[in-house]
Amino acid sequence: MRNVKNAVCVKCAAEFEAARATYTCTKCGGRLEVTYDYDYIKTRVSREKFAADKNFSMWRYMDFLPIEEGAKVCPLRTGWSPLYKTDALGKALGLKNLYVKDDGINPTSSLKDRPSAVAAVRAFHEGKDTVSCSSTGNAASSLAGAAASMGLKSVIFVPERAPQGKLTQLLIFGATVVSVKGDYGATFRLSAQAIEKYGWYNRNASINPYLSEGKKTVSLEIAEQLGFAAPDFVAVSVGDGCTIAGVWKGFKDLFAVGLIDKLPRLISVQAEGCCPVNRAIEKNAPLEEMEENTLADSIAVGLPRNGDKALAAIRDSGGIAVNVSDEEILAAMRLLGASSGIFGEPAGVAGTAGLAKAAAQGLIPSDALVVSIVTGNGLKDVVSGQKAAGIHGDAPGSVSPNLIRIEPDMEKLTREFVKRGVVS
Amino acid sequence: MRNVKNAVCVKCAAEFEAARATYTCTKCGGRLEVTYDYDYIKTRVSREKFAADKNFSMWRYMDFLPIEEGAKVCPLRTGWSPLYKTDALGKALGLKNLYVKDDGINPTSSLKDRPSAVAAVRAFHEGKDTVSCSSTGNAASSLAGAAASMGLKSVIFVPERAPQGKLTQLLIFGATVVSVKGDYGATFRLSAQAIEKYGWYNRNASINPYLSEGKKTVSLEIAEQLGFAAPDFVAVSVGDGCTIAGVWKGFKDLFAVGLIDKLPRLISVQAEGCCPVNRAIEKNAPLEEMEENTLADSIAVGLPRNGDKALAAIRDSGGIAVNVSDEEILAAMRLLGASSGIFGEPAGVAGTAGLAKAAAQGLIPSDALVVSIVTGNGLKDVVSGQKAAGIHGDAPGSVSPNLIRIEPDMEKLTREFVKRGVVS
Repeated sequence: MRNVKNAVCVKCAAEFEAARATYTCTKCGGRLEVTYDYDYIKTRVSREKFAADKNFSMWRYMDFLPIEEGAKVCPLRTGWSPLYKTDALGKALGLKNLYVKDDGINPTSSLKDRPSAVAAVRAFHEGKDTVSCSSTGNAASSLAGAAASMGLKSVIFVPERAPQGKLTQLLIFGATVVSVKGDYGATFRLSAQAIEKYGWYNRNASINPYLSEGKKTVSLEIAEQLGFAAPDFVAVSVGDGCTIAGVWKGFKDLFAVGLIDKLPRLISVQAEGCCPVNRAIEKNAPLEEMEENTLADSIAVGLPRNGDKALAAIRDSGGIAVNVSDEEILAAMRLLGASSGIFGEPAGVAGTAGLAKAAAQGLIPSDALVVSIVTGNGLKDVVSGQKAAGIHGDAPGSVSPNLIRIEPDMEKLTREFVKRGVVS
Repeated sequence: MRNVKNAVCVKCAAEFEAARATYTCTKCGGRLEVTYDYDYIKTRVSREKFAADKNFSMWRYMDFLPIEEGAKVCPLRTGWSPLYKTDALGKALGLKNLYVKDDGINPTSSLKDRPSAVAAVRAFHEGKDTVSCSSTGNAASSLAGAAASMGLKSVIFVPERAPQGKLTQLLIFGATVVSVKGDYGATFRLSAQAIEKYGWYNRNASINPYLSEGKKTVSLEIAEQLGFAAPDFVAVSVGDGCTIAGVWKGFKDLFAVGLIDKLPRLISVQAEGCCPVNRAIEKNAPLEEMEENTLADSIAVGLPRNGDKALAAIRDSGGIAVNVSDEEILAAMRLLGASSGIFGEPAGVAGTAGLAKAAAQGLIPSDALVVSIVTGNGLKDVVSGQKAAGIHGDAPGSVSPNLIRIEPDMEKLTREFVKRGVVS
């Protein structure tokens, strides 16, 4: 890995050899960050080279990844998700240059496919036959899928309350699923013990420094899809902080090698019911744990494990912190779907909800170049989709105005259409 | 549309002008098929031109589509789904050259996004502001998504028994959903009345000849992704017959212009509980209606509306008809997931199940070049996924052997791992 310099502790600045499977700083326990030899990378990349490259996946950015040259990569087509110019949505938000990056179009339908692919590739090349993590969400399903495609085994630890639906993808991908009779803390601790005992590859995002390297490919793509330009603003939802840190890293990498000539401002969006990162930004204070009160489960993280990296990214970028209610998230699901044909899960569209709020507050100039990242597919969480659509069983009163229940009678239907303005 | 000749009735051979929005033969009611001027198309396409084309979506095949040159197309990135060489799956099936075309990677997660995109584009250019169909499945959700992305309205008719989950995508995409108190027949008839009364664009696959033109792009892609070669066999699930007819049409188009030098044999896969097309093939007799007894709802079609086209395609190709049980479909879901990291819905993987069966019966030479099309994403039908994963509530006895429920105790976990062979 000539492109990689080392892994540096973000807390005490201790340096480690990047190729070793160290996860956190052995001196102070801080998170590590992979650093690169940008002078070397400059000799390897150019706009022309990218223009000629027909590998339309995250692996076209191998020069920016901590993976050996020529290494076998995950065969599932990960990344190079579409970047849509969404004029109808832009009009609704008062933004003339709005783009949506739909990362729900990935092998297991979320942005997490990017870091999980990196984890599976690194595990493979470190000679591991098993990858492991504790999670019930997109991290787990993406890891199980990537592992299956590379012929690796996966062992996933979930708390017993994990919904059946979430177990489905894991078991379909052939993972061994350990359902722990206890809470998430107990689950995490048991996974840590087992991973250490058996020497499995550890994909816990809280400690693995390679994951945000996978995540940053979303920014490399955004910039390239804009013709190697940085947006003015990038809106993304924030949970444990790893994604926004990766988003920032991607733009910084491109800036460092001269492929873009400025950096975007980040819009960090959290749920009102769980916004420890944004609260720290607003108070200019250290992180404090919060309760996890939101239906956007992928970003319901009371104690963000990559909080330091996230705070640094938001502050360095001159970022904006916006909190949104669950209702605003559900409204964003409807707005994205009806205006653009994009169906995102709650955490996936929270960034769009926050962008809408920031735009309404006048924080975003109407001619700014803005990208909203949708991080996961709405099919991942149909119950929330039902809530957004106004057909959830728990709320029978809130029936969608677009749903017409009727006898097979054309006259009755005509009256109903006229009443609702479907026809004039 | 200089590339299009006309629309010909497959029953009485009457010819119609293709640009008109005629749906079925006005003389005998037969299905129409769009025909092309292959001599003209030959002057427009070449391997070199495709190699240089950076439009990686179904619209790279505009020369083969019944759409005006330069027309505005559906902005959602539809088609150019990945074709994976699946060696682990091939090994399990005894096939050395097996590929899987994963069409679950599409904007609304099924192959139906292709025909719905064509329908939305044609509606737009015919000056319609509303598209409509009766369906509860992928046809409806893909149409609603495509319409939203083009700024068209959509009105979808569903029978009242339609599951809430299926309504969700429709309402999120802003469709007006008419839930009809009656069965599918009553729903279809009411939709036909309304579509005629209001002059909406009709996307009912049973009558719209342009839909299989959209579907055929899956074959154009398969051939191009194989370096402009035809597979020896293509396996696909069959419901109303439109998809397999489209698959065949795509290969015939390429053969007609000399881009491939042979045609594949089709493997038509239906569910044992609903196999009218395959029964007609086996008996060499006309179609007869059957009951709809299978969990693979997208192919549970007792009276296939495109049966004639499907039968012709299978017979012309020297095809093979294979019926599979629901258990074999669920087994194929597990096999695809665990071997390749691909999660398909039941109807989506039925083709793979049938291929496995045909291979086991010695009908497929082990060195044949075989493509199995997965037509829809498993997230579309999580309940069936749970059944495949052995965690469905209705079958508590059939718990997956890969699911370990345990206290947070490393010693107990170790014993369980050893017992199950997770570790040695």
